[in-house]
Amino acid sequence: MSAATPYVPIDAALSAELGRRFGPAFSRRGADLDVAAKDASGLTRHPEAVLTPRGVEEIQAILRLARRHGFPVTPRGAGTGLAGGALAAHGGVVLDLSAMNRILAMDAANMVAVVEPGVVTMTIRDAARKAGLFYPPDPASLDKSTIGGNAATNAGGPACVKYGVTRDYVLGLEAVLPSGEVLAAGTATRKGVVGYDLTKLLVGSEGTLGVITKLILKLIPHPRATRTALALFPDPERAVAAVGAVMTSGITPSCVELMDHRCLALVAADLPFPPPGGRASLLLIETDGDEAAAASDMAHVVAVCRKMAAREVLPAGDEAARERLWLARRSISLRVHESAALYVSEDVAVPLARIPELLVAVEKLERDHGLAVYAFGHAGDGNIHLNLTADRIEADTAGRMAALVTRVLETVLDLGGTISGEHGLGLAKRRFAPMELSKESLALQRGIKGLFDPGLILNPGKIFP
Amino acid sequence: MSAATPYVPIDAALSAELGRRFGPAFSRRGADLDVAAKDASGLTRHPEAVLTPRGVEEIQAILRLARRHGFPVTPRGAGTGLAGGALAAHGGVVLDLSAMNRILAMDAANMVAVVEPGVVTMTIRDAARKAGLFYPPDPASLDKSTIGGNAATNAGGPACVKYGVTRDYVLGLEAVLPSGEVLAAGTATRKGVVGYDLTKLLVGSEGTLGVITKLILKLIPHPRATRTALALFPDPERAVAAVGAVMTSGITPSCVELMDHRCLALVAADLPFPPPGGRASLLLIETDGDEAAAASDMAHVVAVCRKMAAREVLPAGDEAARERLWLARRSISLRVHESAALYVSEDVAVPLARIPELLVAVEKLERDHGLAVYAFGHAGDGNIHLNLTADRIEADTAGRMAALVTRVLETVLDLGGTISGEHGLGLAKRRFAPMELSKESLALQRGIKGLFDPGLILNPGKIFP
Repeated sequence: MSAATPYVPIDAALSAELGRRFGPAFSRRGADLDVAAKDASGLTRHPEAVLTPRGVEEIQAILRLARRHGFPVTPRGAGTGLAGGALAAHGGVVLDLSAMNRILAMDAANMVAVVEPGVVTMTIRDAARKAGLFYPPDPASLDKSTIGGNAATNAGGPACVKYGVTRDYVLGLEAVLPSGEVLAAGTATRKGVVGYDLTKLLVGSEGTLGVITKLILKLIPHPRATRTALALFPDPERAVAAVGAVMTSGITPSCVELMDHRCLALVAADLPFPPPGGRASLLLIETDGDEAAAASDMAHVVAVCRKMAAREVLPAGDEAARERLWLARRSISLRVHESAALYVSEDVAVPLARIPELLVAVEKLERDHGLAVYAFGHAGDGNIHLNLTADRIEADTAGRMAALVTRVLETVLDLGGTISGEHGLGLAKRRFAPMELSKESLALQRGIKGLFDPGLILNPGKIFP
Repeated sequence: MSAATPYVPIDAALSAELGRRFGPAFSRRGADLDVAAKDASGLTRHPEAVLTPRGVEEIQAILRLARRHGFPVTPRGAGTGLAGGALAAHGGVVLDLSAMNRILAMDAANMVAVVEPGVVTMTIRDAARKAGLFYPPDPASLDKSTIGGNAATNAGGPACVKYGVTRDYVLGLEAVLPSGEVLAAGTATRKGVVGYDLTKLLVGSEGTLGVITKLILKLIPHPRATRTALALFPDPERAVAAVGAVMTSGITPSCVELMDHRCLALVAADLPFPPPGGRASLLLIETDGDEAAAASDMAHVVAVCRKMAAREVLPAGDEAARERLWLARRSISLRVHESAALYVSEDVAVPLARIPELLVAVEKLERDHGLAVYAFGHAGDGNIHLNLTADRIEADTAGRMAALVTRVLETVLDLGGTISGEHGLGLAKRRFAPMELSKESLALQRGIKGLFDPGLILNPGKIFP
């Protein structure tokens, strides 16, 4: 699109060709481009066109045309990603997979679901629930995000502390390769070791190796009961110290979510109780299993939290109160984004016992840089969302923010952590990849990219610095 | 070694060079070569030398020498693999990793273990147990096999039906690449999505992409209680019909193992009860969790088994009886191997609801081919070990066996299954890879191999047909 990229523009002739080939599935309307230009990262990158394919054959066709002509193609689900992975970094065509949204099979006897990539994750969970089954991964966006996007980013969520991430539930998949060929990978069985695991390689590859067109998902029995509690601590540091104590106490909760004092103040209106004030911070903890196990595990959690200086430990109340609490939890990211003049979403993870050190270090860093950091998320995994914000933009704000981001990521790596626990690198964080990945690792990863996509037409400008 | 391979022999000059470089860690003694020539596959392939490296630096050195001179290197753990993955298909040097056997950290606060590849899996499980933690994957060889070999083959085992396979527990690893460079992959955290997942790619790659020199393993809380029961069914078909019923009944047992009538007759002396006779077959089922959950899940299992025509459902008795039963279960493979004149170990998996069809089809096939098939293993995963045997060798036995193997694998694929659930392709099954993998998949896998190992010096002759 720009002179700086090696890609050809979608000019009038090419546009006409694509229009003839794909009909109304192909759009260059400004409104469609504006929608496709944004996701939840806060970044904007306009594609030159949007194709909403109705099936595999159209995806093969656009990729073959892209390779022949030399324009990039960027797959997109619901655009809820926080790292810009679905944005057209170099123009070209956004491939909107939302119309491929059928559940092809909800196979209770074999405990698998077979789905197209555009199915909303919540729809899969609801359909599984009706069959007595459970699809655990639950990114905060689960009522909007699609399973294809979840797989592309290896999405996590609160339940992953007990149940694992999206990759753990993708048994097999079908993908269109940049060559236009269709790859079948993995199995419909619960185990399989035939050859290299291309399924687990494509999951988490952020749409850079192939366009996922079908997924075979593993399902498990739905837990029969869930218990929810809120544990209120005097400050975030003591809250996360309790996380380590809970996680190493011999049981595995089905979620351990942190909301620090800043987050609680921000979502105060949504909470089913008055915000605690000061630096008081909250853990939202659930246990599940059969009725007795959920209850006894929760009794255990409550005892551990009390021992770890919880000010109060309260049951969540009825299902409505629980649902309201979860809505508040899930809204944090959006609320921070809306409330801040400048907002950067980091998504780090550290070993469990290092979370308190991380929060202490971040608190010092935010003061040093004159900025505010919201800490929340999946503390039971060590996966803390850090939203770095400025409430107004001054001449030096961007510089201070950039410095803070770097210092936070350095701190995380010093603590033995990773710069992204579940959001991915996408466009927003790719420049930080060399902080974590060695040159040997980056060279192999570039080699894999080149092997799958020698023309570099599929989602270019992502992951690699 | 042979004229048919492109590799150079370890001649006297090269042998002297390696002897000087590695000292007593390098051996060409016949007894050492004889040991390295065998694993549990029944195949024999003599290497030309064995190197038992004491650290990463020696592994780097041998791989650099291999690349420079053009001889192959085959990594080996305890040699318990059933597919010949650790055998030197083209001569060269076997790299015996058993001396790199330190547990570098058993980090209870962060719920991870950091280990060298030569640690025996049971040693890790025992050390974790002492810290109140659990490393679940439990291949039948777990008291001999090493974690490096388990990772290379993505080993499974009975516990995997509830807890997942080896890959699910490898958070990060260090490997020496065929170039001699050291790759650090993955994280020490419970989640991480920075770049392509090279960790999960190396796990299960059967030692063809790199030599794993360190592993960071995820640990979970040790279950507080286990219940064990034996359910006796009139025939194997009804036993596996009950497996589907148990697995879809709303709970997840911690193992569901099948032993068919042939297996029961074979290990009769090891059983804590008289063998039932006829075609009566057994399920060995365990539940775990806290005391109450293990008990209530087991009560549920017992009710389902009774409903599914179990002749008897018995508790396993005391810990000694349970241990004896497990020894009997784990000894089946070896006993079949010892008792048969000709023995082929298949390790298929099918979707849960298709297991009864598989056993019916196999029973017909064994009769058609005049051979006997032992069926046992991880029925709860759909992963059935089929040991194909002849009790004497006649002129046409090998031909009948080859025909039976092909028909069994075709049947498995027709049922939506995979030709290997946990043993891998190695040397023994690589010729069947194209039955399951498409040409697109094989081409990408060969490309990945070429990227990691352009000289094809690391464990050549494996996986690929």
